[in-house]
Amino acid sequence: MATSGDKLPKMQYRFLGRSGLQVSVISLGGWVTYGGSVGDEIAHECMKAAYDAGINFFDCAEGYAEGKSEISMGQAIKKYGWKRNDLVISTKIYWGNAFGDNPVNNGGLSRKHVIEGTEASLKRLQLDYVDLLYAHRPDRNTPIEETVRAFNYLINSGKALYWGTSEWNAEEIAMAWACAERLNLIGPVMEQPQYNMLERDKVERQFALLYENYGLGLTIFSPLKTGILTGKYDEGIPEDSRIATATEGFTTSQRESYGNEQWQQNLAQVKKLKPLAERLGTDRATLALAWVIKNPRVSSAITGASKVEQIAKSVKALDLLPLLDEKVMAEIDELLGNKPTVPYRRL
Amino acid sequence: MATSGDKLPKMQYRFLGRSGLQVSVISLGGWVTYGGSVGDEIAHECMKAAYDAGINFFDCAEGYAEGKSEISMGQAIKKYGWKRNDLVISTKIYWGNAFGDNPVNNGGLSRKHVIEGTEASLKRLQLDYVDLLYAHRPDRNTPIEETVRAFNYLINSGKALYWGTSEWNAEEIAMAWACAERLNLIGPVMEQPQYNMLERDKVERQFALLYENYGLGLTIFSPLKTGILTGKYDEGIPEDSRIATATEGFTTSQRESYGNEQWQQNLAQVKKLKPLAERLGTDRATLALAWVIKNPRVSSAITGASKVEQIAKSVKALDLLPLLDEKVMAEIDELLGNKPTVPYRRL
Amino acid sequence: MATSGDKLPKMQYRFLGRSGLQVSVISLGGWVTYGGSVGDEIAHECMKAAYDAGINFFDCAEGYAEGKSEISMGQAIKKYGWKRNDLVISTKIYWGNAFGDNPVNNGGLSRKHVIEGTEASLKRLQLDYVDLLYAHRPDRNTPIEETVRAFNYLINSGKALYWGTSEWNAEEIAMAWACAERLNLIGPVMEQPQYNMLERDKVERQFALLYENYGLGLTIFSPLKTGILTGKYDEGIPEDSRIATATEGFTTSQRESYGNEQWQQNLAQVKKLKPLAERLGTDRATLALAWVIKNPRVSSAITGASKVEQIAKSVKALDLLPLLDEKVMAEIDELLGNKPTVPYRRL
Amino acid sequence: MATSGDKLPKMQYRFLGRSGLQVSVISLGGWVTYGGSVGDEIAHECMKAAYDAGINFFDCAEGYAEGKSEISMGQAIKKYGWKRNDLVISTKIYWGNAFGDNPVNNGGLSRKHVIEGTEASLKRLQLDYVDLLYAHRPDRNTPIEETVRAFNYLINSGKALYWGTSEWNAEEIAMAWACAERLNLIGPVMEQPQYNMLERDKVERQFALLYENYGLGLTIFSPLKTGILTGKYDEGIPEDSRIATATEGFTTSQRESYGNEQWQQNLAQVKKLKPLAERLGTDRATLALAWVIKNPRVSSAITGASKVEQIAKSVKALDLLPLLDEKVMAEIDELLGNKPTVPYRRL
Repeated sequence: MATSGDKLPKMQYRFLGRSGLQVSVISLGGWVTYGGSVGDEIAHECMKAAYDAGINFFDCAEGYAEGKSEISMGQAIKKYGWKRNDLVISTKIYWGNAFGDNPVNNGGLSRKHVIEGTEASLKRLQLDYVDLLYAHRPDRNTPIEETVRAFNYLINSGKALYWGTSEWNAEEIAMAWACAERLNLIGPVMEQPQYNMLERDKVERQFALLYENYGLGLTIFSPLKTGILTGKYDEGIPEDSRIATATEGFTTSQRESYGNEQWQQNLAQVKKLKPLAERLGTDRATLALAWVIKNPRVSSAITGASKVEQIAKSVKALDLLPLLDEKVMAEIDELLGNKPTVPYRRL
Repeated sequence: MATSGDKLPKMQYRFLGRSGLQVSVISLGGWVTYGGSVGDEIAHECMKAAYDAGINFFDCAEGYAEGKSEISMGQAIKKYGWKRNDLVISTKIYWGNAFGDNPVNNGGLSRKHVIEGTEASLKRLQLDYVDLLYAHRPDRNTPIEETVRAFNYLINSGKALYWGTSEWNAEEIAMAWACAERLNLIGPVMEQPQYNMLERDKVERQFALLYENYGLGLTIFSPLKTGILTGKYDEGIPEDSRIATATEGFTTSQRESYGNEQWQQNLAQVKKLKPLAERLGTDRATLALAWVIKNPRVSSAITGASKVEQIAKSVKALDLLPLLDEKVMAEIDELLGNKPTVPYRRL
Repeated sequence: MATSGDKLPKMQYRFLGRSGLQVSVISLGGWVTYGGSVGDEIAHECMKAAYDAGINFFDCAEGYAEGKSEISMGQAIKKYGWKRNDLVISTKIYWGNAFGDNPVNNGGLSRKHVIEGTEASLKRLQLDYVDLLYAHRPDRNTPIEETVRAFNYLINSGKALYWGTSEWNAEEIAMAWACAERLNLIGPVMEQPQYNMLERDKVERQFALLYENYGLGLTIFSPLKTGILTGKYDEGIPEDSRIATATEGFTTSQRESYGNEQWQQNLAQVKKLKPLAERLGTDRATLALAWVIKNPRVSSAITGASKVEQIAKSVKALDLLPLLDEKVMAEIDELLGNKPTVPYRRL
Repeated sequence: MATSGDKLPKMQYRFLGRSGLQVSVISLGGWVTYGGSVGDEIAHECMKAAYDAGINFFDCAEGYAEGKSEISMGQAIKKYGWKRNDLVISTKIYWGNAFGDNPVNNGGLSRKHVIEGTEASLKRLQLDYVDLLYAHRPDRNTPIEETVRAFNYLINSGKALYWGTSEWNAEEIAMAWACAERLNLIGPVMEQPQYNMLERDKVERQFALLYENYGLGLTIFSPLKTGILTGKYDEGIPEDSRIATATEGFTTSQRESYGNEQWQQNLAQVKKLKPLAERLGTDRATLALAWVIKNPRVSSAITGASKVEQIAKSVKALDLLPLLDEKVMAEIDELLGNKPTVPYRRL
């Protein structure tokens, strides 16, 4: 297995679902600066290392670190003088009310917030447009038509090139498409779900008809399930880990879930993967990332990095892809024991 | 019952009909500066008190005080440095020809006036866009398609986020929706009718199908029927009241109606409410406002204020809401004797 | 009959067909500066007199005086500080290739010329938009869809409020409407034909279905058929008349037509009107103009003026309207002997 | 036959397919500066000579000479002060990834590249819009709807007046039209194929239904099949010819094809034309160009010029047109022996 001094494998690019846009199969997410745990300098160096490794897709959201994630990412883009057309920049609208004084109308998917939120994001990013604009959650209080129209308004205004969803379920995405088709508008091109060896059902079963009918693309997050798949919690939670130290955010809820039945079951699954990883000459983190990318429905796997070296480690997962043949993949399915029972047509 | 020194109840917010926009259930209307009866300083202080009480919706119109109402409201927004996304600002187009030299093409709902009028309003308000743009009356001389297209043009130009109507009847609103649906355009999201204990038919009966079919939202005006519901005219018209002193505007026509059969009947209804209000530990003004808000179809009740203290008084109506249970509401219906006979499905 | 020192009658306004736009029934056309026969100073004074008389509609075209007519009209608007919303300004696109070096693509109704021509017109007029934008002739070399889309593009860009046609025939207008309806676009609101006592067939018979189906409005030109209806050619062509002196333009073709059968027949019709005009206490010019306006399908009659006094004379035709009762109108029909035989529903 | 000192024939203009746009039947292509083989000075002089000869259509592409062709053309337009409305300027989007550091998303017909590429082209051309915007190749990786929408976005943004395709096949063009019609969008107005005496099948047979159904216009390239039709390769490839010296581009592949069966067959066809050309008092180059223009489906034949004199020689092909009567055309068909067997309705 490659070590950090080695030459990195050549980056691979995939079309984002049925669209004509190409994204690197490994991408970098801006949420890592959350809570100031990663300073601007290191964040910028990570982005630079990612860019140099061929990563072209940088993922962000208005809700990450109360907008500071966008500011940091925008500064890096300016600082390194990257050409706009070489980058695929995203942001997501919904969680604008997670910070600031007044939550009313500053979140969700109303026309007001989708437009005002996007314009605020573009200002923070110092950009004229984003490539990908996500609805960060479904909003049951806003009619889908209002949301579909608002995203199309932004595309028609030149402020976004494509729009999609994040953590919507299959029916909601299908309803957005039905609405867009009825009004001759543009439908959501991509969805951003959680996907990893331990969370397979949505991507591998629930979305099957969306791939067939709308060519839905996937930019997935949490390929390592915030670390559990690396094996670092095999023997309990280390004192310096994010789960142990985080004072806010979803790792808190993870800490609470520590020890519960699901957690124990996941730990057991992860431990079973260890011998296989060693046999393939790699570790479980790399195996888990490569396994996600192996699914051709995944256009890009969004990784995090709080140290520059993590970029190289992630990219090297590409070296493992050729080893994940049918036999190995079947072996993994058996070890995990969670393959969705209703098959979908994997490409 | 709370007195003016008390802590104000927490403001409540409702979605504007089926839309994803949230408005405070109590809002402030700019028409009070009409005729210069309320100067800028007091108007601004009232807006400040309203904002501090959680009111986010400020209602205006090109026709209020010959455009001066918009100017005053715009100055307050600038002066207090409120964030645009925290506010829901409206204006209404139709009565532009009520002032100025040349009435031709400066009023009504022609494409020319809707566009020119809105741009003039935005200049007076010093804003790039309003949240809500109303057609202030139906215009029988302009095809509904021309009006629907003009409002959609303004939405597509980013100058308004939502459009609606004011004092249109049910058929006119339905025709606007039919036109919008035929052309794949955006229909009117809200209507602004008069609604109070003495004027119930439109809101409680005539609009029933519009709620069902188009999710029509309501921002109602005149919750106190310009004062009669407060009981202040019980013993005749006081010499210093607006009805007695106004030299122009609709209070003049009210003065003319003073003493007529309808007026006498209304006075009788209002008097009957007095004992009930006392039993609930409140006055009739507060009861009337709370009663209006009790109707879930009402997204916001627009109140006026010519003194800062009136804001607190209005907001305290929220404290009364829990007391308006089914039994009390039935009692009110009986006292008023004007419940529409064809029921509609109250939520 | 009123003389030029009298007080002018109050201007009347009509809706432009089914639209919500109001135009003065008498309007002023900019073509009078054609060939430099009327200098800027007089043209501006005529516009001032017209404006003061309540005329709000000023008609122009890119082809009038090689664009100089638009320049002159734009200067007057600026000079007198008229408010944009008080004016209805038109221009017409088609004849851009009548002047300049290169006729290719500088005329007709291609997308290229409609857009480039309108932008050049707006520059000459010093305006951001015109109220009315006409296709000055049909263009059989350009698909109607291309033209309909180009005019809608300009309306969507805020450069025109309404579009219409000039000298199109009924089928062409109907085809433009069919195309607009198929594509959910805006159809032509008005047509500008020749209409006067001697040219009745188009307006009174051919367009009948267009009024019914599309609410077509009319802004008519040549109410006096370039002078013949005034009676000034009764005894031959005066040496100083425009027909005698013009070196270019359509008066040249008129001079050629002088003496032909049609001309003689028209002269005979015009002479028959003299006693009637005298009986009504007016002259034939005033009678002819009033007669045109009497037709409610005519939204505005475009008049010319090369002297300031002509404005007053035209406006005074309004005084004659009440005298044109059913009996007098029937008498005129009999004298002219040219009433279209297939009746249409005159309002 | 005319020599270069003679007066040039009057340029002819044709409508671009069914559209209302007129292009000179002979036009000038910017690709000649490719690889620096033609410097700016000569390129500008060629454009000047072309303009003076009545050529109004100048054809370019983002992919020509890595963008330098657009820069050079833009400089010439500025330098000579030509009026924008007198010019028909094109560019083509697709080959943006043929140069520069990062090919990902910088080519093809994704929404991202169509928009970003066109904006970069306009900057290089120093223009606000192009008249004609081509999809330079079909892109099988991008849904046709995404491409159709992106070109319509640019038309609606005022950055292009018409869009079309280059080297698409008949089914692809028909699918773009089907998509445009379904969405009420604008379809591709023109196609730019290779067309000459040796390549006839696409234009004369495959596209037949596209002319009938969509009024497809043609701007053809390679009327001399990069020189072979001039006869200059009759006796082998001269040492100083482009085929012999080019180090990159499609002439390299031609060099490889030199001597193969197809090449030998073409040479034989070209040799047969020599006596006919002499009988008509011309050479084969002129005959080949005139023959292409003779086809009324060809709106414009794009020629190249690396010397100013070549412009005059091309334009003089117009003198030959009257001699290409039915009998001569039939004789050519017989000599070439490649007339498509399934006839299409030649106008």
